[in-house]
Amino acid sequence: MEKEHLLKLLYQVQSGDLSPEKAVLQLKQQPFTDLGYAKIDGHRELRQGIPEVIFGSGKTPEQIIGIIRHMKQKGCNNILITRLSQEKAEQIQQEIELHYDPVSKIGISGQKGNITASGYIVVATGGTSDIPVAEEAAITAEVLGNSVKRLYDVGVAGLHRLLSHLDLLMEAKVIVAVAGMEGALSSVIGGLVDCPVIAVPTSIGYGTNFGGLSALLSMLNSCASGVSVVNIDNGFGAGYLASMINHIGN
Amino acid sequence: MEKEHLLKLLYQVQSGDLSPEKAVLQLKQQPFTDLGYAKIDGHRELRQGIPEVIFGSGKTPEQIIGIIRHMKQKGCNNILITRLSQEKAEQIQQEIELHYDPVSKIGISGQKGNITASGYIVVATGGTSDIPVAEEAAITAEVLGNSVKRLYDVGVAGLHRLLSHLDLLMEAKVIVAVAGMEGALSSVIGGLVDCPVIAVPTSIGYGTNFGGLSALLSMLNSCASGVSVVNIDNGFGAGYLASMINHIGN
Amino acid sequence: MEKEHLLKLLYQVQSGDLSPEKAVLQLKQQPFTDLGYAKIDGHRELRQGIPEVIFGSGKTPEQIIGIIRHMKQKGCNNILITRLSQEKAEQIQQEIELHYDPVSKIGISGQKGNITASGYIVVATGGTSDIPVAEEAAITAEVLGNSVKRLYDVGVAGLHRLLSHLDLLMEAKVIVAVAGMEGALSSVIGGLVDCPVIAVPTSIGYGTNFGGLSALLSMLNSCASGVSVVNIDNGFGAGYLASMINHIGN
Amino acid sequence: MEKEHLLKLLYQVQSGDLSPEKAVLQLKQQPFTDLGYAKIDGHRELRQGIPEVIFGSGKTPEQIIGIIRHMKQKGCNNILITRLSQEKAEQIQQEIELHYDPVSKIGISGQKGNITASGYIVVATGGTSDIPVAEEAAITAEVLGNSVKRLYDVGVAGLHRLLSHLDLLMEAKVIVAVAGMEGALSSVIGGLVDCPVIAVPTSIGYGTNFGGLSALLSMLNSCASGVSVVNIDNGFGAGYLASMINHIGN
Amino acid sequence: MEKEHLLKLLYQVQSGDLSPEKAVLQLKQQPFTDLGYAKIDGHRELRQGIPEVIFGSGKTPEQIIGIIRHMKQKGCNNILITRLSQEKAEQIQQEIELHYDPVSKIGISGQKGNITASGYIVVATGGTSDIPVAEEAAITAEVLGNSVKRLYDVGVAGLHRLLSHLDLLMEAKVIVAVAGMEGALSSVIGGLVDCPVIAVPTSIGYGTNFGGLSALLSMLNSCASGVSVVNIDNGFGAGYLASMINHIGN
Amino acid sequence: MEKEHLLKLLYQVQSGDLSPEKAVLQLKQQPFTDLGYAKIDGHRELRQGIPEVIFGSGKTPEQIIGIIRHMKQKGCNNILITRLSQEKAEQIQQEIELHYDPVSKIGISGQKGNITASGYIVVATGGTSDIPVAEEAAITAEVLGNSVKRLYDVGVAGLHRLLSHLDLLMEAKVIVAVAGMEGALSSVIGGLVDCPVIAVPTSIGYGTNFGGLSALLSMLNSCASGVSVVNIDNGFGAGYLASMINHIGN
Amino acid sequence: MEKEHLLKLLYQVQSGDLSPEKAVLQLKQQPFTDLGYAKIDGHRELRQGIPEVIFGSGKTPEQIIGIIRHMKQKGCNNILITRLSQEKAEQIQQEIELHYDPVSKIGISGQKGNITASGYIVVATGGTSDIPVAEEAAITAEVLGNSVKRLYDVGVAGLHRLLSHLDLLMEAKVIVAVAGMEGALSSVIGGLVDCPVIAVPTSIGYGTNFGGLSALLSMLNSCASGVSVVNIDNGFGAGYLASMINHIGN
Amino acid sequence: MEKEHLLKLLYQVQSGDLSPEKAVLQLKQQPFTDLGYAKIDGHRELRQGIPEVIFGSGKTPEQIIGIIRHMKQKGCNNILITRLSQEKAEQIQQEIELHYDPVSKIGISGQKGNITASGYIVVATGGTSDIPVAEEAAITAEVLGNSVKRLYDVGVAGLHRLLSHLDLLMEAKVIVAVAGMEGALSSVIGGLVDCPVIAVPTSIGYGTNFGGLSALLSMLNSCASGVSVVNIDNGFGAGYLASMINHIGN
Repeated sequence: MEKEHLLKLLYQVQSGDLSPEKAVLQLKQQPFTDLGYAKIDGHRELRQGIPEVIFGSGKTPEQIIGIIRHMKQKGCNNILITRLSQEKAEQIQQEIELHYDPVSKIGISGQKGNITASGYIVVATGGTSDIPVAEEAAITAEVLGNSVKRLYDVGVAGLHRLLSHLDLLMEAKVIVAVAGMEGALSSVIGGLVDCPVIAVPTSIGYGTNFGGLSALLSMLNSCASGVSVVNIDNGFGAGYLASMINHIGN
Repeated sequence: MEKEHLLKLLYQVQSGDLSPEKAVLQLKQQPFTDLGYAKIDGHRELRQGIPEVIFGSGKTPEQIIGIIRHMKQKGCNNILITRLSQEKAEQIQQEIELHYDPVSKIGISGQKGNITASGYIVVATGGTSDIPVAEEAAITAEVLGNSVKRLYDVGVAGLHRLLSHLDLLMEAKVIVAVAGMEGALSSVIGGLVDCPVIAVPTSIGYGTNFGGLSALLSMLNSCASGVSVVNIDNGFGAGYLASMINHIGN
Repeated sequence: MEKEHLLKLLYQVQSGDLSPEKAVLQLKQQPFTDLGYAKIDGHRELRQGIPEVIFGSGKTPEQIIGIIRHMKQKGCNNILITRLSQEKAEQIQQEIELHYDPVSKIGISGQKGNITASGYIVVATGGTSDIPVAEEAAITAEVLGNSVKRLYDVGVAGLHRLLSHLDLLMEAKVIVAVAGMEGALSSVIGGLVDCPVIAVPTSIGYGTNFGGLSALLSMLNSCASGVSVVNIDNGFGAGYLASMINHIGN
Repeated sequence: MEKEHLLKLLYQVQSGDLSPEKAVLQLKQQPFTDLGYAKIDGHRELRQGIPEVIFGSGKTPEQIIGIIRHMKQKGCNNILITRLSQEKAEQIQQEIELHYDPVSKIGISGQKGNITASGYIVVATGGTSDIPVAEEAAITAEVLGNSVKRLYDVGVAGLHRLLSHLDLLMEAKVIVAVAGMEGALSSVIGGLVDCPVIAVPTSIGYGTNFGGLSALLSMLNSCASGVSVVNIDNGFGAGYLASMINHIGN
Repeated sequence: MEKEHLLKLLYQVQSGDLSPEKAVLQLKQQPFTDLGYAKIDGHRELRQGIPEVIFGSGKTPEQIIGIIRHMKQKGCNNILITRLSQEKAEQIQQEIELHYDPVSKIGISGQKGNITASGYIVVATGGTSDIPVAEEAAITAEVLGNSVKRLYDVGVAGLHRLLSHLDLLMEAKVIVAVAGMEGALSSVIGGLVDCPVIAVPTSIGYGTNFGGLSALLSMLNSCASGVSVVNIDNGFGAGYLASMINHIGN
Repeated sequence: MEKEHLLKLLYQVQSGDLSPEKAVLQLKQQPFTDLGYAKIDGHRELRQGIPEVIFGSGKTPEQIIGIIRHMKQKGCNNILITRLSQEKAEQIQQEIELHYDPVSKIGISGQKGNITASGYIVVATGGTSDIPVAEEAAITAEVLGNSVKRLYDVGVAGLHRLLSHLDLLMEAKVIVAVAGMEGALSSVIGGLVDCPVIAVPTSIGYGTNFGGLSALLSMLNSCASGVSVVNIDNGFGAGYLASMINHIGN
Repeated sequence: MEKEHLLKLLYQVQSGDLSPEKAVLQLKQQPFTDLGYAKIDGHRELRQGIPEVIFGSGKTPEQIIGIIRHMKQKGCNNILITRLSQEKAEQIQQEIELHYDPVSKIGISGQKGNITASGYIVVATGGTSDIPVAEEAAITAEVLGNSVKRLYDVGVAGLHRLLSHLDLLMEAKVIVAVAGMEGALSSVIGGLVDCPVIAVPTSIGYGTNFGGLSALLSMLNSCASGVSVVNIDNGFGAGYLASMINHIGN
Repeated sequence: MEKEHLLKLLYQVQSGDLSPEKAVLQLKQQPFTDLGYAKIDGHRELRQGIPEVIFGSGKTPEQIIGIIRHMKQKGCNNILITRLSQEKAEQIQQEIELHYDPVSKIGISGQKGNITASGYIVVATGGTSDIPVAEEAAITAEVLGNSVKRLYDVGVAGLHRLLSHLDLLMEAKVIVAVAGMEGALSSVIGGLVDCPVIAVPTSIGYGTNFGGLSALLSMLNSCASGVSVVNIDNGFGAGYLASMINHIGN
């Protein structure tokens, strides 16, 4: 709870405008709405200037519609739904206006915001198959007000593809490196640039990639400095963090 | 290789100041010195304004002395040696002036630099046993020119210890969350603040902590946004990345 | 075998009311009925006052119907079937009256019992997606005669949602904490309350959650005291144990 | 924070006895003392009637002495130190009076309390080698005011050893089952009794026991109801939880 | 190659009945037929008196039919096909006479042999869900000429179910113990009897059973002597080995 | 970048035929075409004399068609597509001429090349179920201009099947050993021959084969010299490397 | 409990020779002695004709001496102590007569028994480094009355070493195959012989042998029939089971 | 067994120069010497022209001396001992002349042979700490008659170090890429060259490198063609295989 809010409340108690009992009640009044199956934090947008995000996987279309409707009533007009299957998206679209991107499996209710950060984010992938995860990162970052440059299929087994875009890489404010299989992309990029590199292992591959474990371990063991890692296939997390870093100093 | 450097070289070829053969030679002339057992990048300090770092583990004292001596000749006066055992440090100190910190196992040859970033970094730990890793992060960040605030033993099993420092956390530019065992510290901090959180799992614990695996998995699965993870016990990597982020906009 | 039962049998042999041969037979007469594919313990309800439970997964509808019918003949009128798919439930409902809950995948043949314990159990979840496992725990506990209070979607990434229900938590007799992903919920709750906390890791998540492993390891490594763990997704086990603890002293 | 405490504080603000600024200060005044390397919760004994516990592993003797001294000043006279090596214990004993048990590696500063719960706890082990972990559980429970009955070397490969103590088991309020290797002890006990069984896997064994993993998985997969599990070798956690359950209704 | 066969061949060379070149040819003449996709060992039945076995999984119905036809031509009239899906079995039955058991997924082309061993094999399971694996063991053993006694659903969580059949167990020549989940059945049986116990872990369970890993590790760590283990769900291997042991001394 | 190319470029700058600015541009001109979702290396065939390979899994039919069309325009007339499902192959065949092999899941657009290496490659499998992976290796090697001899179903449990083909094995230039389950084939072959053995673990098996892990570990631990390993089920990689070795000295 | 014993007891109750109370007492009288830290089963030798075995690891020398002394008083004169370190053995030898073998780490108090089975056991190893585990198996079997033939360093990478002893292998009653690294020995032997093969994986190796895991998985996945597996490095268990099988029919 | 040898033997039988009985004996006469603890293959040098290799780890100095002495008697004068600790080497040196290299832990009894292959092998490492494994590979290859070029500390985090030696790499006949941590070196090299790349993962690193697992998985998942992998830290295996490939066509 914020200090200012608390002080204001206490002044009201001091001045007699608020009884102690009611103050306790207010202190307990949650800054979220309880739908039973979900507790929605309606203040976040005001507080942080960013849209609300719904993790679509594991929620029924009915639950997602309920959450969106509640948010819209509270004034949110920029809602991101991640990990949303085509099937669920179509069910939701029958009730609510929703833009859906089948590659990234992102749904957007409302409009993409304006670009609010001066630098740009590079989202790079090792291969073509990593694109869905990369798009999750890129679209998330775009919705959060960032300029994003895509650099796909530049894996380390053909270094010239990567090296021919060195300029683009070296002027980025932050880079999201998305790769499956041996996951070496983040190490090579991390050794070439001086900005933070967010590594996203993907589950792309077969056999000993063990669902993304090989790329994950590679990235965690990167001998390049400035590299940190998010969960396997977590494009959203990388896009969100990249936006956070890209907005520093803006 | 930088575009400007290449252009300048080509102008010299064009003007006849440099023969094509010598240009190829120059292009091949490495921006590092080869000691046989190590290839030292002497340009990095000039280029990036940061000290050179030696990973002490797995190198002999003789190799470390050789690398430091070479760097000093090249003008580096701020060299960090990480993962340096007390025993090796003492052998090195017989040959070269070296400040050694036994908790973080960091050696410094030269002087800590000035503070060059306006914001501050919080380094927090779940328990007392996580302090060595946290100190590796904190001292690294200090050597790289950052103001660091330490917040130790604030694990989630006693939330009031953490919540009583909310102000400190909420005004940080970036937070390093160091924790072993269940590694929940980064999730809780990530849910409280709006700045990037770098999670460092530690190998502290026993049984099912499996050498830090439990904390690592927890941190990678964090449901809080803005959290990314480095290798188990990698205090250096976290301190380096925190410094990188803290210097954005400076 | 109970001492009293054995003594009584021996007195009968001593008095000649029972031949040694028949005593051996009786001693071997099982306190269960053998259906070939299952050995049903019909005495348990009498002995323990609790309903019989059938683990539905891996049994055919025919086997389940056979077991229920046999139990009903023996006088059981409160039978719980867990892990029962909608499809199997519908096949069973064509033969036998059965209440089926599709969220928890629990079937109940007979009536829920009365509340037989004075305290209450809190069942809390980290997210909306953990609800099916939580409901398995909650309904199991209700069928076993407990008052259950549900507290869903209170994960540690938004601490205020949890802290606003501190009163409810602190007066519980026992708490079931259900969480996937980083599984930190049980540690945070365990640090806030003084009652036993039963942690249920769920397989909810993706990538490095490795089918619930990350939450499991987090929970086992909890630095809060009073926390113990059951199998991944084992809502039934948690509900059963919670009921056992909630009935102590009643 | 407790509701009563908050209400009282607010009444003082209302009455003008306390300025809002000072109230904020008080609200921020931590219920713990900060030693830098550790934040000690001095109120816990008063609040929960139980002694303070120090996890000895990973702390220096100097840190442990510092924590004990501070606690004694605050009035604690019953301090448990777990995972304390003989060597550290001897260093501490040169400064402070300390009872040390080399089998369980527990140190006690102060006196064991009286027995405050009416029931008893059974601590059982599969083999002789599991005794150190079992003693950690048993002594912890005794220090916390419980009557403990030890039942060692009753592993399932010789069932008659266990069955000959059925009476003892069936009248226990809670049972701690400590076992390494195949860890089947908790399942067999769980099937015989109606009270909660806390299973403690131990790292005793070799080869495929993988540091206690085999026993842990066995215990988590127990088909007996009423069984929950703590971390490998976590005798303290089991003893603490057993005490919590044994004190219900007292 | 058998010594007798070699000697005979050499005598033929010595006597001039066989040229050295033809002897080399014969030595190279394989005791199997090459179908391209499979090399069938037609001599095994004559040599070992047991039927040929086809591992059905991963072979097409056409390949299986081809192998059976070839064998029948060579005189085999007792062919076992394991891991045969219902769908493949039906395709094969359109071409060849085949008895198919959907529980064990075993197909038999030809007739079950007579009982050729004097003792009997017990096949026991922990639960009802383990029956398919147990039936694979039992039917394999029956086809190989053994008397088999089934003892299903006698898991250790209800010891009385197992103990009531002690006589049956103690007179067995060899016991196959089939169990999933915590896999304790083999340890308990191994402690009760003096004959070899073949433990078969099953993939029955969920969560931390990790596809049978928990039962496997339990069984490998058994503290009872005389227990050995086969692959997860490998009922065939257990039945085959049990038959081998049961035939010793016959 | 090749030294000759660089020298030529620099001579052109020296001679004034090329301005430095244009040279920089040329240096940046990628030796690949950027389709957005893929960066195609059109020079590789010229440079290395081998066909281009497309990894079909994770690419849409549209993307594959786009890549093939672009390649054909650039003059490639021998394109290999691996891991291509029957369904995708049929969609592609509606647009482009494509030969598809359903066993190896390889598609070929263009014609198989001539045999360009004098020696031969043996591709051996442990069982019938390993054939799809073996065919991927064999066809890849054939397309790359090698003579391939297949030796299927010669697993170590029936050594005579393998030993009867010793001549074939001992005269091979390189051997690809494909095996699942216990993966011993490569060790046994490696001990019999003096040429390089490329081991390919397959995911064939069940239970503890853990998706090919058991075969992989066996092969990596081979005590025979001259054995190296590729990813689980990576027939293509083995065939490609075998071709590379078979072409040495040609 | 044996049926005969129970019947006899009941006859005594019937005849009045024994009061029911005393019968209960007798039934509870354990067939073992309780030393507190160990429950010794003194009847086993009489019952099974085999010596008592003490698992030395994890027991103090004092505990081992106590157990041996107690057994000797009960009449055991053939006691095997496994996993006994040289250091502990020397401490025990100061108190009690003990034969110690430093290779197998077996101690024997008393005399080796006579050979009581007509067949012989082969103990084979893959390499020289596997000998300690093999000797544990061999000496155990010898103490239990078996003739043992050792066949060391016959790993599959040099098949001729194994094949030159085919006669010895084919006439064995049971074979113990001890191997580390890729563990293929048991598969190859299992394919050559018709008797049971007990596979013992060893922790010999490095890197991906992961403490014996690679050999263990190989052995469990053996495609040869008649192979079963014991714990990594469990020479004792293999020797014990081999003896059990070798005594069938004697 | 070689065909020529067999034919010759059979001719002798045909001609009466050899009785069938003696032929059997000869066929059984092993081409190795049996020292009990080791079976030494004395023919290998003659057959393959390469020195005998002893795996030193897990053998006693006495055993190693015994094996060397036996080999010398048989005429071997070029014996390689790998994984030989300094301590054992010194014990052996007291009995036998031995050259010992403490970095690679290789001992050589006899003289290095001449260079017998025309091409050269590159041995490259990612870091300084990987040098011991690389030296094991390099010295092994040198002893086997190869020219070796070392390229150490050229990890992918500083690509310019690697790219500045492109000429050396592109003209190699085969490359051994030794790397720990993220193990990306082999992928990057594999993408730059057209010759076989043998990847050696090392156990260098900490935390999530899990004893070399991360580098191993990276290398197995390499998206570059022509890369195969040997066991973690297996420098010898890589050097041996590199020599085999480098000798093709010589």
